[in-house]
Amino acid sequence: MKIAVIGAGALGLYYGALLQRAGNDVQFLLRSDYEAISEKGLQVYSKDGDFHLPKVKGYRSSAEMEPVDLVLIGLKTTSNRHMVELVKPLMGDGATILTLQNGLGNEEILAEAFGEVNILGGTAFLCSNRKEAGAVHHLDYGPITLGSFTGGHRLLLKSLEKVFNQAEISCSVTDCLLKARWQKLVWNIPFNGMCAHTNRTTAQLLADEGMTAELRAVMIEVIDAANAELEQLGEDAIDEVFSDSMIAATRKMADYRPSMLIDRDEGRPFELEAIYRTPIDRAAQNGVDMPRTSLLSSLLSLE
Amino acid sequence: MKIAVIGAGALGLYYGALLQRAGNDVQFLLRSDYEAISEKGLQVYSKDGDFHLPKVKGYRSSAEMEPVDLVLIGLKTTSNRHMVELVKPLMGDGATILTLQNGLGNEEILAEAFGEVNILGGTAFLCSNRKEAGAVHHLDYGPITLGSFTGGHRLLLKSLEKVFNQAEISCSVTDCLLKARWQKLVWNIPFNGMCAHTNRTTAQLLADEGMTAELRAVMIEVIDAANAELEQLGEDAIDEVFSDSMIAATRKMADYRPSMLIDRDEGRPFELEAIYRTPIDRAAQNGVDMPRTSLLSSLLSLE
Repeated sequence: MKIAVIGAGALGLYYGALLQRAGNDVQFLLRSDYEAISEKGLQVYSKDGDFHLPKVKGYRSSAEMEPVDLVLIGLKTTSNRHMVELVKPLMGDGATILTLQNGLGNEEILAEAFGEVNILGGTAFLCSNRKEAGAVHHLDYGPITLGSFTGGHRLLLKSLEKVFNQAEISCSVTDCLLKARWQKLVWNIPFNGMCAHTNRTTAQLLADEGMTAELRAVMIEVIDAANAELEQLGEDAIDEVFSDSMIAATRKMADYRPSMLIDRDEGRPFELEAIYRTPIDRAAQNGVDMPRTSLLSSLLSLE
Repeated sequence: MKIAVIGAGALGLYYGALLQRAGNDVQFLLRSDYEAISEKGLQVYSKDGDFHLPKVKGYRSSAEMEPVDLVLIGLKTTSNRHMVELVKPLMGDGATILTLQNGLGNEEILAEAFGEVNILGGTAFLCSNRKEAGAVHHLDYGPITLGSFTGGHRLLLKSLEKVFNQAEISCSVTDCLLKARWQKLVWNIPFNGMCAHTNRTTAQLLADEGMTAELRAVMIEVIDAANAELEQLGEDAIDEVFSDSMIAATRKMADYRPSMLIDRDEGRPFELEAIYRTPIDRAAQNGVDMPRTSLLSSLLSLE
């Protein structure tokens, strides 16, 4: 399969590398890693086994890249204003766009530019980061849940699931992408923001009992907001117990610096629009208040 | 009137100095200022006019002090575990205790040790701070609202009001100390905590529109918690409009570093129990949730 990875950060590099290792023809749009990867290839350090791709198709602009079957988007949502122009040159006949970005509102931007028929979304529960140029570190987890923005696309989703699973990316298909997006936000909204705001790792926050209660309370706000949307679609609600399982899973995983904490370390802007403001606004439209989330979002805006 | 000031910080030094200037016999329990004040007296820099008290009765321990008519408590609530032993030696016959401390729960500690009959409380809306030893800076405001912990004590309150007014301390008496305490918390809970947590002054926070909305939303939580208690006493509720007048007053006042921000600067513990935890617990007992306040309190606990 011809695949282009747009937004080759810790997520895009990791999944792109796995897809290339499995025999897919992968092109990467690179920025800071361009020289290192052109010279030495791409190194993956993974808890599932390290590997090295000596030859990687890296590009500085998507205009130089060839049209593909699948555009995999791992772009930071803070760069969404450039997303459509980056994707446009890659859209071969019947090409599919899969956004693995965080938060809400990304599929909407793509659908407006390219039509709803091409748009898939996925949530990645992945702990990965970058340190040195030309390498990506996979710390824990990695499963992807795929879904269609408009519903349907069952066969397409199933074939992509197969491609991902063949690449040793644990993958499953959901009938309700919106639910998967909100489920990921149940983790992202408390942990990304609170770790970034307090400059603490997940384990450091969970060592504090009062803070753990607050993180759980934020999760309940996200679940309430989610359920207001899911109810309108006739989908099953997310149970509050989901918050406990997320906290338990986070306790079990390697002590983690979420992407927003790394954004803080590296002076990058936070993904406030997709992860906080759009969910808060959509909840408000459904009459759901998110007081803790709202305060956290305002604190993050001050940084 | 023989007066002892326990907790001679920015509040105790300022009011004590005004009371001494008006002819009262004031003793101060001092710590870090002891040498400077013993040598050079006490300097007050005030927007209402600077003045200097060349001779001040300063003590290192309350055991060395004489019993008085009025014990004025300006102690940080973080030192409340020492409060009773500090006050005990000062209690002359029929002595009155007036606590001007922040938050909830202070009168309760005093009443348990000294009996309810002696206990008055007051709220000071005062912007003052300390910089160099032996001096206090009065930046803005300063009115005190006096009330009785158990109700009643009308004559005592009126006579104290007169003593304070004669000392050019604007003073009034309230029938409901609890309401005055909560009204002060409507300011303290958002501004003390948020300024301390974000290391910003009141004006810096109010320059941000989103943060101003959050501060107001915290105020509404405090008003709701207050009204649940006031309703039980048959007292009039605090109107939500009070939040707008507090924000307007804060915009008008000199750019201010609230006491908790100064605590942060000086590495002192925050007054979390009196200003946050007790109000949150009492609200919860009345079935009132304070989500933003709770999150802010947990963030302050992490510092």
